[in-house]
Amino acid sequence: MSAIKELQERFAEIMRLHYISALLGWDQEVNMMNYKSLEGRSKQVALMQKLIHQRETSEEVGKLINQAKKENLSEIEGAMLREIEREYTLATKLPEKLVMEIAETSILAAKEWREARAKSDFSIFEKLLVKTVELQREKAEKLGTHPDLYSTLIDLYEPGATYDWIANIFNPIRPKLIDLVKKLNSSPDQPDGSIFEKSYDEDTQFELSRKVIEKLGFDFGYGRQDKVTHPFSTSLAALDVRITTRTTEPFPDCITSTIHEHGHAIYEMGISKELHDTILCNGTSMGIHESQSRMWENIVGRSKEFWMYWYPAFQKHFPENLKDVPLDEFHRAMNIVKPSFIRVNADEVTYGLHIILRFEIEKDLIEGKIQVKELPEIWNSKFEKLLGIVPPDDAKGVLQDVHWSMGSIGYFPSYFLGNLYAAQIYNKALQKLPSLPEDYKKGEFSTLLSYLKENIHQYGSIYRSSELINRVTGEDLNSNYFLKYIENKFIPIYRL
Amino acid sequence: MSAIKELQERFAEIMRLHYISALLGWDQEVNMMNYKSLEGRSKQVALMQKLIHQRETSEEVGKLINQAKKENLSEIEGAMLREIEREYTLATKLPEKLVMEIAETSILAAKEWREARAKSDFSIFEKLLVKTVELQREKAEKLGTHPDLYSTLIDLYEPGATYDWIANIFNPIRPKLIDLVKKLNSSPDQPDGSIFEKSYDEDTQFELSRKVIEKLGFDFGYGRQDKVTHPFSTSLAALDVRITTRTTEPFPDCITSTIHEHGHAIYEMGISKELHDTILCNGTSMGIHESQSRMWENIVGRSKEFWMYWYPAFQKHFPENLKDVPLDEFHRAMNIVKPSFIRVNADEVTYGLHIILRFEIEKDLIEGKIQVKELPEIWNSKFEKLLGIVPPDDAKGVLQDVHWSMGSIGYFPSYFLGNLYAAQIYNKALQKLPSLPEDYKKGEFSTLLSYLKENIHQYGSIYRSSELINRVTGEDLNSNYFLKYIENKFIPIYRL
Repeated sequence: MSAIKELQERFAEIMRLHYISALLGWDQEVNMMNYKSLEGRSKQVALMQKLIHQRETSEEVGKLINQAKKENLSEIEGAMLREIEREYTLATKLPEKLVMEIAETSILAAKEWREARAKSDFSIFEKLLVKTVELQREKAEKLGTHPDLYSTLIDLYEPGATYDWIANIFNPIRPKLIDLVKKLNSSPDQPDGSIFEKSYDEDTQFELSRKVIEKLGFDFGYGRQDKVTHPFSTSLAALDVRITTRTTEPFPDCITSTIHEHGHAIYEMGISKELHDTILCNGTSMGIHESQSRMWENIVGRSKEFWMYWYPAFQKHFPENLKDVPLDEFHRAMNIVKPSFIRVNADEVTYGLHIILRFEIEKDLIEGKIQVKELPEIWNSKFEKLLGIVPPDDAKGVLQDVHWSMGSIGYFPSYFLGNLYAAQIYNKALQKLPSLPEDYKKGEFSTLLSYLKENIHQYGSIYRSSELINRVTGEDLNSNYFLKYIENKFIPIYRL
Repeated sequence: MSAIKELQERFAEIMRLHYISALLGWDQEVNMMNYKSLEGRSKQVALMQKLIHQRETSEEVGKLINQAKKENLSEIEGAMLREIEREYTLATKLPEKLVMEIAETSILAAKEWREARAKSDFSIFEKLLVKTVELQREKAEKLGTHPDLYSTLIDLYEPGATYDWIANIFNPIRPKLIDLVKKLNSSPDQPDGSIFEKSYDEDTQFELSRKVIEKLGFDFGYGRQDKVTHPFSTSLAALDVRITTRTTEPFPDCITSTIHEHGHAIYEMGISKELHDTILCNGTSMGIHESQSRMWENIVGRSKEFWMYWYPAFQKHFPENLKDVPLDEFHRAMNIVKPSFIRVNADEVTYGLHIILRFEIEKDLIEGKIQVKELPEIWNSKFEKLLGIVPPDDAKGVLQDVHWSMGSIGYFPSYFLGNLYAAQIYNKALQKLPSLPEDYKKGEFSTLLSYLKENIHQYGSIYRSSELINRVTGEDLNSNYFLKYIENKFIPIYRL
């Protein structure tokens, strides 16, 4: 057997272990919310991480990589070898003990974080967050992919990206976002969001969210949708992609966040069968992943044309709330731009500011320039600077996101990169398929899905994000398309 | 480190892999019913079996066992070593390929069986059942624990038991059961079961079943109850025991089958903390396990005293069906003895005949005396002999049980052994705690639970079933107590 084939087999087993790990995580989030003890589960998670780590770092893998480099490889095999070598190089730098400690801590910290958030009491979470940050720092030091710790962590989610590269993209946008928010908020003709203060039956919301994503292409023969407190998407096999939905936030969060998770899921579901069970059977970066989720959620799911198709069904299901509300008013209400505390509920303009806040804090946190115990204060003061308001409590402030409890430091930038990727890709899609908005009016979403499958989804991780964005759009990632998109969208909505 | 401690650590890891496997199985049953493909999952299950098998059969384990035998062991350590050696001996006889093939086939066969049962078409299941039987035969041949293949398989579920031992217990009961059924059915005063032909709201059934087991001691902080098509119980960690419930069968199946699964779960939940994460953290045999489930389900859950406490709540929730039905009539209706097609719905008297049927068929099947394709016919003719009726189709006949699809040949006898163990243990409990029935009237079930915990549950697998039954009751397993129990119960119910 050729070295690349043997590597492929070994990494098929590793993929299966990852999928099994993902089931442990999915189950914990969906089914173990009321558990008194996660001790057993945390040891199982750590064990799976150990098994994966042992396989990724085996001496044979190192030898096979060197052999495979001398083999005559196809494009796909070449990409596999690139990803395998990356995994091997990263994993061999991390001691098994650290890998297991990170896994175990993340389960326990997620539980503490949940309680801290529920009680809005940062002190409950502080101790394990200190440990988490220390573990991530140790991990970054050991990996040493880049000269600075934060870039090393960012690189895990967005391969090839660095702090500087992202800062160069984010920094010029920052004032533009702040200006646009001010401009919109100064409009004399403000949208009225009071319809979302009304009560919307939770079961009906869930049912509708299910119908929407089914129409968008989610295949329930290869996945599930369950209720949770924090929406996410995860793959438990090439053909088992699960999303979760919450119905507890003000309407229409359930719908938009379900469409968001659907965007992640449909990316994974669309990966070419040829790549199943290989290391390439993954979205290529978290930024590209977020581009898919946020394109469906925002560019499609908050567009007027989308709601021209869906709104009558929603009016029918919520007659008391929506019967007398014209589509235009509804559409404006769901596109209100206004500084608010919670990232996941933020509008498309202020969203980037939420990310920039976290991006700056994470950088200082991992480099030890700020201490965990200072976080609530720093969060609030930076929040005021960026968004002009101060969170009333830590639940609505520094405790709102699950990421740090899971040890995910360096993930946040992906969300905003996703917005930028999305706008750039969608601009190209519209050039090629100018009838897309007309399609949405008719409930036809497969045109866009086919375009994304053909140009992005099928390739899994064959192409790195920088290569992919060039293949699809002919240029590097830049923020022009996003800035143009939000201006073109929100100036008319605010009737300016 | 001593050899026994090192073995303990190794088998703690194996236990965790078993728990993770159990999650894969639980999830498949609870969450993947509508999936178009189980291919990814079946490979994951096979991989976990491979990892377990590799660990159980490692040379080091063999060496450590020999070393540990020379060490000065506590009673618990001695029991651990016994179980570890048993696992090692069994596992080393089975080639890895066979273990993985059995695992993969069981997932795929379960899917075919489900379809076959839904369509009542044996031919859909036939091919994979042939394969399953062949694999089980190969497994039994390789293991060779006993001179005959069937005893070797039985021994996997009821360590120490053989075909002959069980036949010697079952054979004398068989005519007595048939006689008792005839006698009861000749009574001029037959209970009226028509109240169970009415419709009972499924959500209310589920809610009530939940309340019942909560009162019986099920702790929802360490477990879950979910809806499925086939009830079962499974441990995903020492403190994560899950049961499943169905609400689709005629009332009160939901309640009695939930109490049954609760009986399994509460056994596992009651194992001493000292045994957590060890090979002894399991019920000691499937027969003893079934004794717990069937004791709670039948001896307690179908007793008059139990319903003296619960019936008012049920009347309140189902007023249209039960308001005007006196307790006595309800109790008689749920204890109707009558030949019927489905094992899990059978009454306490005919139940044993359903098991004897399977016991005889399994013996001939595994020894090649009957072929898979003959099964439907043989099933029906034997069924007529034992129960006097012929299944109208294979869904109500040979296709009704999931066990064979999972490769579980040799499990069925455990159910009836469970009835016998249960009656013998309960007889002893009543001697020591004569007020038990009075307790039930007051909704007090912790007296019985404490007795079972103290005498059975806490020990996990420290004592083999033959030793355990002697410790608890002072004698070997025998059918006297069961026969006395059903006579004492059903003769008065039938007013003879």
